[in-house]
Amino acid sequence: MTSIAILGYGTVGSGVAHVLDENTGEVRASAHDDVRVKAILDLREFPGDPHEKQVTHDFQTILDDPEIRVVCETMGGVNPAYEFTKKALQAGKSVCTSNKELVAKHGPELVRIARENRVSYLFEASVGGGIPILRTLEGALKSERITGITGILNGTTNYILTRMDQEGASFEDVLRQAQELGYAERDPSADIEGHDACRKIAILGSLMMGGYVDSESVPTEGITRISTADLSGAREFGMAIKLLGHCRCTDKGLDISVAPYLIGRENPLASVNGVFNAIAVDGNMLGTSMYYGQGAGRDATASAVVADVCEIVRNAGSTVPVSMSADAVELAPAGDGFRRYFLRVDGSHAQEAQAAFEGSTCKTVKGADGAEEACLLTGKLRESAFTGQLESLSGVRNWIRVLDE
Amino acid sequence: MTSIAILGYGTVGSGVAHVLDENTGEVRASAHDDVRVKAILDLREFPGDPHEKQVTHDFQTILDDPEIRVVCETMGGVNPAYEFTKKALQAGKSVCTSNKELVAKHGPELVRIARENRVSYLFEASVGGGIPILRTLEGALKSERITGITGILNGTTNYILTRMDQEGASFEDVLRQAQELGYAERDPSADIEGHDACRKIAILGSLMMGGYVDSESVPTEGITRISTADLSGAREFGMAIKLLGHCRCTDKGLDISVAPYLIGRENPLASVNGVFNAIAVDGNMLGTSMYYGQGAGRDATASAVVADVCEIVRNAGSTVPVSMSADAVELAPAGDGFRRYFLRVDGSHAQEAQAAFEGSTCKTVKGADGAEEACLLTGKLRESAFTGQLESLSGVRNWIRVLDE
Repeated sequence: MTSIAILGYGTVGSGVAHVLDENTGEVRASAHDDVRVKAILDLREFPGDPHEKQVTHDFQTILDDPEIRVVCETMGGVNPAYEFTKKALQAGKSVCTSNKELVAKHGPELVRIARENRVSYLFEASVGGGIPILRTLEGALKSERITGITGILNGTTNYILTRMDQEGASFEDVLRQAQELGYAERDPSADIEGHDACRKIAILGSLMMGGYVDSESVPTEGITRISTADLSGAREFGMAIKLLGHCRCTDKGLDISVAPYLIGRENPLASVNGVFNAIAVDGNMLGTSMYYGQGAGRDATASAVVADVCEIVRNAGSTVPVSMSADAVELAPAGDGFRRYFLRVDGSHAQEAQAAFEGSTCKTVKGADGAEEACLLTGKLRESAFTGQLESLSGVRNWIRVLDE
Repeated sequence: MTSIAILGYGTVGSGVAHVLDENTGEVRASAHDDVRVKAILDLREFPGDPHEKQVTHDFQTILDDPEIRVVCETMGGVNPAYEFTKKALQAGKSVCTSNKELVAKHGPELVRIARENRVSYLFEASVGGGIPILRTLEGALKSERITGITGILNGTTNYILTRMDQEGASFEDVLRQAQELGYAERDPSADIEGHDACRKIAILGSLMMGGYVDSESVPTEGITRISTADLSGAREFGMAIKLLGHCRCTDKGLDISVAPYLIGRENPLASVNGVFNAIAVDGNMLGTSMYYGQGAGRDATASAVVADVCEIVRNAGSTVPVSMSADAVELAPAGDGFRRYFLRVDGSHAQEAQAAFEGSTCKTVKGADGAEEACLLTGKLRESAFTGQLESLSGVRNWIRVLDE
């Protein structure tokens, strides 16, 4: 019997207890031991909850309990999760978490402290919700040379883009409805500005390189500039627009970013719709493999936390390896990408734009105000060259990168 | 340093040597040891091949070599692969394989012999080529209750259906081109009759249930009946036609089959095109997750074999668990499925067909001979009821199940 504690009895934390209650037999088969929740840390009381008696308000009692071998940190945020995690690891307890913010900020240190204390720090649920991507990178794909990772890492923005695309509804309208449905936060900036996806691609990039990518140095754009005219234009070219976290090895370092991209309809990421997430991994022998599933949601995320618990219990006494270290990964200079671009201009400036980008193809769409606009798909060129040309152009409404591989 | 042997230096076997040569560092990081090919069994000689000196014609020298700890069986077929595998396991050597035929036929026995000899029998490459699906089922998804698995498990038939759909070309024409391109065998029956997919879904069903599904008891249909008129009709209903291996738990046992199905375009399997494979897994907490990648090809398949080698070396001294046993899985009675059906009839019998299947919707398509045909999408009913009704109908050209979940 292995006893665990849950820190934070919110959506994910209560989900962890729920999964353990529902899947007792499966958890035993996976962990090779019974797993029970012994303590739950939360400031609140939960009268009537099946686990109300396990609730405590004092972290120290968890820390001091030698029976508790694994701590699930499902609080979110950096403080006090960082301090609690560090103390638990130092006390010889393994920790698994869904907290992408903490992993993106302090992952390498916590992984090291875990190793020094012969315990584990695992964070499957921090990227891609229930999609078992970290375990796959550390396991089945470990003998591959991973050359790139591209993912739809944020369900909220993918839901918004999907509905804008399918219904022609405006960004503002869809965002408001997403908030009403609970798919978007009251303050949606972490999602729509790309910060959430940024933390996730920084974690994936760190694991891919076996080092550390500071999420604050990842160029990040959200979807607030995307209009239905962009989506119509993309469709004219047989493409979709997705907010992607993207990293790939180049000879100048790791090229990593979060931004909206046009992708061809034949790319399997193009048909990932709604709140789903998907992560495509390029291996030198395997080629592209893709992992798809629910990017959020209580039970899916909790299932990933429980999978980490099982992995830890199954490997009790040793550290489950995690390829993240404090070695800073060298990043490629921004603006160095070589690709095609989608450009939307006022109809009256179409000819001028086509002249500026020789060899581009042009389609006409209707703008938000009903006026005719021109959408161009350029040939391949450096981003710095593209943006340089843009400066001399008038009537530019928007431009978006094309994922060219 | 771990020494391994390769049995059969054909496409996959030579790929295994290639992956080990190319990814030496990655393999070391994954296996926690160096891995080298010490012997290759083949009837032929390979003058000029970088591994020509490792080639032997005598299995006994491999069996007798105490340094060889892992054997990669990439011969295919049941004989002599079965005998060689058994002897290797009994000699205390782990075996990993891409041989779906052998696993489908003798998997439970070989898994048991491996366990009795404290070694491993792994077969990631036997299902889904390079897609790490078995490892995921045994690892990250082990704490889930898996309720169903649905997969595009054969790249040849998916390539044929994709090209028929996209180009309106006939089955015969596309098959001939696929043979010319090497995507289909000279004798294509194992692919187009569904036998290859059948073995794979039987393996997946066995692992899902922790028992054994005999592939010979899995109702199996191929794609030879599918015409461009069917694909046109499906498109009219916003659906695609895919050859699926499908199994799901019902209260009457495991409902398992291989057959062409209509699936909605919003189903992520619908956009898996060409030679790619994809496997969707339904978990009780995780919901649906999907795994996508190259279903065949030398390096992708070999990469999966090498991943098994690394798993075995990393766990040297113990048996890597595999959830397959000799316990026969109870199968649901055939014809018990409750779903919608796609029905194509001569245009002159459209009214009659609509009367027979009340509440069905009807679209008109052009048949192969240019004549008008009617495509119906029925309401949900038992398969036995549907086929019973069919008997009284004239002008029936084809019917196909709809994947309704």
